[in-house]
Amino acid sequence: MAVGLSPPDPAQLAPVPGLELGVAMAGVKRVNRKDLLVMRLAPGAAVAGVFTRNRFSAAPVLVCRRHLRNDIRALVVNTGNANAGTGADGVKRALEVCQALASHLRCRPNQILPFSTGVILEPLPAERIVAALPAALADRADWRAAAEAIMTTDTVPKAVTRRVRLGRREVVVTGIAKGAGMIRPDMATMLGFVATDARIERGVLRALARRVADESFNCITVDGDTSTNDSFIVMATGAGARPSASELRRVEQAIQDVACTLAQAIVRDAEGATKFVSVRVERGRSRDECRRVAYAIAHSPLVKTAFFASDPNLGRILAAIGYSGVALDPAKVDLYLDDVLVARRGGRHGAYREEQGVQAMKKSEFSVRAVLHRGAAAATLWTCDLSFDYVKINAEYRT
Amino acid sequence: MAVGLSPPDPAQLAPVPGLELGVAMAGVKRVNRKDLLVMRLAPGAAVAGVFTRNRFSAAPVLVCRRHLRNDIRALVVNTGNANAGTGADGVKRALEVCQALASHLRCRPNQILPFSTGVILEPLPAERIVAALPAALADRADWRAAAEAIMTTDTVPKAVTRRVRLGRREVVVTGIAKGAGMIRPDMATMLGFVATDARIERGVLRALARRVADESFNCITVDGDTSTNDSFIVMATGAGARPSASELRRVEQAIQDVACTLAQAIVRDAEGATKFVSVRVERGRSRDECRRVAYAIAHSPLVKTAFFASDPNLGRILAAIGYSGVALDPAKVDLYLDDVLVARRGGRHGAYREEQGVQAMKKSEFSVRAVLHRGAAAATLWTCDLSFDYVKINAEYRT
Repeated sequence: MAVGLSPPDPAQLAPVPGLELGVAMAGVKRVNRKDLLVMRLAPGAAVAGVFTRNRFSAAPVLVCRRHLRNDIRALVVNTGNANAGTGADGVKRALEVCQALASHLRCRPNQILPFSTGVILEPLPAERIVAALPAALADRADWRAAAEAIMTTDTVPKAVTRRVRLGRREVVVTGIAKGAGMIRPDMATMLGFVATDARIERGVLRALARRVADESFNCITVDGDTSTNDSFIVMATGAGARPSASELRRVEQAIQDVACTLAQAIVRDAEGATKFVSVRVERGRSRDECRRVAYAIAHSPLVKTAFFASDPNLGRILAAIGYSGVALDPAKVDLYLDDVLVARRGGRHGAYREEQGVQAMKKSEFSVRAVLHRGAAAATLWTCDLSFDYVKINAEYRT
Repeated sequence: MAVGLSPPDPAQLAPVPGLELGVAMAGVKRVNRKDLLVMRLAPGAAVAGVFTRNRFSAAPVLVCRRHLRNDIRALVVNTGNANAGTGADGVKRALEVCQALASHLRCRPNQILPFSTGVILEPLPAERIVAALPAALADRADWRAAAEAIMTTDTVPKAVTRRVRLGRREVVVTGIAKGAGMIRPDMATMLGFVATDARIERGVLRALARRVADESFNCITVDGDTSTNDSFIVMATGAGARPSASELRRVEQAIQDVACTLAQAIVRDAEGATKFVSVRVERGRSRDECRRVAYAIAHSPLVKTAFFASDPNLGRILAAIGYSGVALDPAKVDLYLDDVLVARRGGRHGAYREEQGVQAMKKSEFSVRAVLHRGAAAATLWTCDLSFDYVKINAEYRT
């Protein structure tokens, strides 16, 4: 069902010097599947993370937040169990995995970042993960295999590479992500990992990670449900060139590009999605108010079912704009479907014919654009439709 | 499909002295259906209203807000067309209807309140309504007929009466409402009208209407979509007794009871609903934060599909509580399904067995109760599940 999304070509995915990948079968939930990924970093790598704001943060998120103060030597990711809603015992089990990996790598447990995704409210079988660590450490995996190892109910592995030329040298940026819906039923977690061999200081990387998350993973919504495990990690191994200040902006742009592509891939692979929709709000007073209006459109079940039905139901979109909480003047709002002006100054545009709207919305990808005429700010979100299959998948998952 | 909702027995609906009802066929959208209701008030009646906060307020809402400053003599309600998204022309047409009714009643046009419900973004056929006014004025309808005349896609007419004994006298409170979903596809509008013959001053009634709306129509949610036309009107004809201060509290309680019953009837008749769910949040610091948590639960598409599937998916409910924006401590949260303690201190309760949760959720009516252990405030919302039929109704309505 994924909208305009194909599996990545392994030949297009560049290794990142300074980072080694290994996968293994730990049998966390199912046997005979590679469900464990270990990413090892060369000493001196910088790592930054952005995590869910859900108060019910999963155990690995709590551990990551603490460990990120230290020099990180490895990341360990399991699928099949999210270690969420597991309280103090969950933290203990996450730390057991860190401890075991640290003793293999001769570093401290607080130099390991753990990540878990899968069913929630069930105890993490830490002993199975610990038992599979040697196999993962002995393995040499490529990014495609890494992307596959972290999938839960994703239908397509998600990975992408960008290269940035810095004078005569080149740095690479490669990332992977998982997630199908902000939460797939019981399968908590959006995970995103982006690595570059560029040398970037930790403090700089932290600010960069937050900016990038804000323009990528924080710009997607499937159902408005924020997971307990959402994590986005940026790693700069330092094995490659150290960019100058102006070059750094281009590296950030590449990281941003990778993160955006991965974030959009999650929406394209969302539960039951048949449409990929860009919602853009322009000429607001601030980016924040543009986002509020865009979220109101993107979260409205009525708008999302209209997307599904290719029904240019302008009233639903205008009503969502109207209840966004922004003190806008409806008599100034223009609305476009792709490039078709459908509503002008808050009412149906005289020249608009419904066939034009249907034509735009029949495509598997289109944009909704609202122009508020209040200021100079803008924001874009990416979302999908609400289909029969969304209800089917979510209602029938456990029954 | 309505959950536990039957048509009202006309014998149980009491007329309200000082208020006369008449219905007629105006042919606004369909012929051969009574789609026009006129409510005439005796001189001196007090009227108060609470309206949608949607910035795209419909034309009749804009007119009502202005006219409510005056002594109101009549309300006119049409179904079939919402006169929403119609700009200045929409206001002109709403005023034409007021003008015509005012000349029949020999009062000023600004003593008339107009209401419209039905398709949006289409011009109101004011001339058809004007032509049908004499028939509506000649008619003597009961409350059941009035409730039927304002239905759009409701499957059950909604009306209820309560009586309050004041010493040796008695006053009645009767109300009607329409709405099936906060917005039924293209059928904007929740309308609620409650009338009593008690004598209550306008200023007192205004404050009362706001309190009552806050505890009734503002406590329901189907899909989080706020309509452009939502209106709630309280009328006190003054033809009956003037309550003392302590009696007034009992009259308010009866009005509250009528409004709550009507509000819940809207949820019971919601699009595709198979479950009626009370969401109660207790021991928060303020009513507002309890409502925020309750809304997060009631709006989560994942929680709502779990309701539909009778799936006690605790992780989804806890996750919704976690992203509500309230700075609660997850390690203190208890969660109940009806009286079954399912999660204690943020984790699955040891003694809880899933069959208990399934048993509770299989019923067509049940409650979700979260206890935050932060303070002494509480709030309750009423909502429904998200079913295949919700998507079907909303996706197929116009196609």
